[in-house]
Amino acid sequence: AAPFDPSAHPHRRWNPLTNSHVLCSPHRTQRPWQGAQEKGDGPQLPAFDDKCYLCPGNERATGGRNDQYDGTFVFENDYAALKPEAVEGDEASSHPLLRSTPARGRCYVLCFHPKHNLTIAQLTTAPYSARSSILPIVHAWRRLYLSIPQENPFVSYVQIFENKGSAMGCSNPHPHGQIWSLDYVPEEPRTELLNMQAYALDARNAAPDVLRGAPLDEQGRASLLLTYAHLELNTPGTPRVVAQNAHFVTVVPYWALWPFETMLLPYKRHISSLEDMTDEEQLALAELLGETACRLDNIFGCSFPYSMGIHQRPAPRGHKGADAELGDFAHFHIHFYPPLLRSATVRKFLVGFEMLGEPQRDLTAEQAAARIRDCDTTHYLAKSN
Amino acid sequence: AAPFDPSAHPHRRWNPLTNSHVLCSPHRTQRPWQGAQEKGDGPQLPAFDDKCYLCPGNERATGGRNDQYDGTFVFENDYAALKPEAVEGDEASSHPLLRSTPARGRCYVLCFHPKHNLTIAQLTTAPYSARSSILPIVHAWRRLYLSIPQENPFVSYVQIFENKGSAMGCSNPHPHGQIWSLDYVPEEPRTELLNMQAYALDARNAAPDVLRGAPLDEQGRASLLLTYAHLELNTPGTPRVVAQNAHFVTVVPYWALWPFETMLLPYKRHISSLEDMTDEEQLALAELLGETACRLDNIFGCSFPYSMGIHQRPAPRGHKGADAELGDFAHFHIHFYPPLLRSATVRKFLVGFEMLGEPQRDLTAEQAAARIRDCDTTHYLAKSN
Ligand SMILES: O=P(O)(O)O[C@H]1O[C@H](CO)[C@@H](O)[C@H](O)[C@H]1O
Ligand SMILES: O=P(O)(O)O[C@H]1O[C@H](CO)[C@@H](O)[C@H](O)[C@H]1O
Repeated sequence: AAPFDPSAHPHRRWNPLTNSHVLCSPHRTQRPWQGAQEKGDGPQLPAFDDKCYLCPGNERATGGRNDQYDGTFVFENDYAALKPEAVEGDEASSHPLLRSTPARGRCYVLCFHPKHNLTIAQLTTAPYSARSSILPIVHAWRRLYLSIPQENPFVSYVQIFENKGSAMGCSNPHPHGQIWSLDYVPEEPRTELLNMQAYALDARNAAPDVLRGAPLDEQGRASLLLTYAHLELNTPGTPRVVAQNAHFVTVVPYWALWPFETMLLPYKRHISSLEDMTDEEQLALAELLGETACRLDNIFGCSFPYSMGIHQRPAPRGHKGADAELGDFAHFHIHFYPPLLRSATVRKFLVGFEMLGEPQRDLTAEQAAARIRDCDTTHYLAKSN
Repeated sequence: AAPFDPSAHPHRRWNPLTNSHVLCSPHRTQRPWQGAQEKGDGPQLPAFDDKCYLCPGNERATGGRNDQYDGTFVFENDYAALKPEAVEGDEASSHPLLRSTPARGRCYVLCFHPKHNLTIAQLTTAPYSARSSILPIVHAWRRLYLSIPQENPFVSYVQIFENKGSAMGCSNPHPHGQIWSLDYVPEEPRTELLNMQAYALDARNAAPDVLRGAPLDEQGRASLLLTYAHLELNTPGTPRVVAQNAHFVTVVPYWALWPFETMLLPYKRHISSLEDMTDEEQLALAELLGETACRLDNIFGCSFPYSMGIHQRPAPRGHKGADAELGDFAHFHIHFYPPLLRSATVRKFLVGFEMLGEPQRDLTAEQAAARIRDCDTTHYLAKSN
């Protein structure tokens, strides 16, 4: 039998954040493709579209009118998945296998920029810059993360995210993201928080040979993600590191599922949320966020679709809510889940085996990281001019 | 505060098979859609395509040639995600956060029918019938479920599934499914088996008011899914039942995630796998499988994309493999995960909030079930002739 080589042989990798596995089949990218083709970049969009319900000054579907904004702009989602009204009582469950509970929350839309035809990736390259155009987005996220729970005391969790591109279900190309707030901590962040808690409470993880120089959290405990970020930055050749600056690093996680999945996180100190970031850290975050999106676009020279979002402390410090005690274990991070696999038009489908068996990927995290690392940090659209 | 009404108010439902939640937003289907459009049915395909690597007699990408088959046809996947070769040793893990293990298995392709332009849904309507054209597929599945572990003693799990339609990553429209076998039980079925085990070992679930007349399993224990099937069939108005015959029932599970998700399962007795089914049960399975697929196609009058697959005992009785002891808790069932939401061209995207927060759906299971139940059982393409 040949010795196990993870760059050539099928294998499973373990995801410590979710305590689950991904099947990795590094040899599988050669198979022929006669399946679906994504659209790729369409014709150049106008900077203002009078039919767009997100452009400045336009009317929205339910009658509201947008401000003539020139930075970011927030409004409450006209078709919110959650509503702030309280309803009375749980459903009297008629059987232990039929259980439901009411869910309460508020959903907002955040326009990133007045121009209809820009993306975070493009906001990195002149005449735009992360400082002028992405930092305001980070500031808006921070403001909303603080204000939504304050104004809605029933809120226990704030989820900030962006769906980009029609391949990721985005219903409007105008640069925007969403903020959903809820009266409970949803499955995915709750699972991560519980695993981060278990890691921190296991004293073995504070041993020097596990920490390898990573800082501890405020309570002097090992932090799963802070340890992980350090480990990646100190692995010879940094095979999964894609980009870094003075405070943040972007890696293709060892356990990545989507072909070019990345995670962006602070590596200098334990930071539980946007609330805890200094001005300098907020700028560094804006810069690395933009660089990460720009590198993705440059892989195939197309506007790379993705879902992206923040996991952090469920709600600001001191806010009383469900699972608030898990908050100290949170280490701020951003997940990028981009679906393209081989080209601007061929994506990875997580279907069949992935839905019924377990997640499967076709190239290794290390192969993907090398590809992203080799990309330019000047946006391809700016270069062709 | 209004009294909680699950058909109108946002709520979470609990999935006992996976012990996780889905957020249900029944009021949300009205929002406007300017996003991606799926292709819908293209032009009518030919019955034989000389470029198709699945049609009888044709050559495949890696050089093999298909039999001149006239029923079903099996071959080993030329681009298998798993390989049968053993490799030596685990990766010497350099850190507790970096863990991988080699994975071994074999992957097969099963052509359902020689004609390039048919689907399981169409095989239900004259000149075809479930007996003549779907029963052979069930027989092939049963044969492969029995033979793959026997011929490959290292196999611990057999996953039978079908990806249908380009929206579900299917790379060739010729009617076919796949069988992946592995040397471990993957995440999803393992989670289900563990939850079925916990349910069976909890004596409270065998109490008459929980069982409500459902049969026990072979060891005299309550079965999660058998109890659930009975509960649905005995709920006044059977709001989630879509179709049934003498042995099987199709329901939109209370905790369904995909808009028109269904589950097909035996309700008369505990059946752990295809191995345990009588001839009569196999025919009933073929019939309800076809009817379920046909009803889906008739919802929007289009070939409804889906991923579909079997969960059952990991490997046949007596086969020694990983987690074999969980096998007795398995109750055979088929999951259908179809993505369309509003029309032949507008699907549900499980993105953004669904990836970063938790799964979310836009109509209730009961609304979806009513819609599927109202559909005809004659295929729309046969009617228009
Ligand atoms: O094997 P196929 O049909 O080429 O590929 C399809 O099914 C596989 C198994 O569900 C998935 O991993 C692929 O992403 C999908 O495109
Ligand atoms: O809110 P939008 O942009 O209309 O809708 C998009 O994002 C939502 C949140 O991730 C998803 O639930 C929808 O399926 C998706 O199409």
